Amino acid sequence: MNNLFTDLPTDLPEELVEVLAENKHVRIERIVSTGHASPDGFWYDQEEHEWVVVIKGEAKLLFEGDDEPVHMKSGDFVNIPAHRKHRVEWTTPNELTVWLAVFYGDN
Amino acid sequence: MNNLFTDLPTDLPEELVEVLAENKHVRIERIVSTGHASPDGFWYDQEEHEWVVVIKGEAKLLFEGDDEPVHMKSGDFVNIPAHRKHRVEWTTPNELTVWLAVFYGDN
Repeated sequence: MNNLFTDLPTDLPEELVEVLAENKHVRIERIVSTGHASPDGFWYDQEEHEWVVVIKGEAKLLFEGDDEPVHMKSGDFVNIPAHRKHRVEWTTPNELTVWLAVFYGDN
Repeated sequence: MNNLFTDLPTDLPEELVEVLAENKHVRIERIVSTGHASPDGFWYDQEEHEWVVVIKGEAKLLFEGDDEPVHMKSGDFVNIPAHRKHRVEWTTPNELTVWLAVFYGDN
């Protein structure tokens, strides 16, 4: 794969995560969702920072302590510091949502 | 700015580079071009690796020693190892080309 929009699955029982590039400090992933959300009560609590952009589709990302999720559409990005707890409340069931995520650490 | 497609310039005499996130190991940039190319005889020779994707628009990227440039369109990405010499031969003059680049080092 060398295009973010190719090799997209037609049937997607779980989120699809592919590593596009990585070294000891950074990992770049394409994540494909279709209607997936984090399980009830689950929060991501990551060792690394994550910069993430929605390339296509739509998603709602909830940060712990916030009343309302952030509704992300094509081109929207957020930088999530390590250990900032968050969860995916919703991704649109109408089309594939393609995320590009860059995970990076301080060490 | 928190969307890759917002705050796009209307007049762009030079390439526009904005840092979206960075720490000591990684730097994430949005680069906007419109018909820009590298100066004649110029080659990028970078200390860091660069993973780069064309989000919108089109560009031709030439690697030293190659006969033909890589024609990149929306979603196309390449990983450019440090010191792999390359240049931008062309970006489309018909619309803005938006690149997302992740620079990362091994140290």
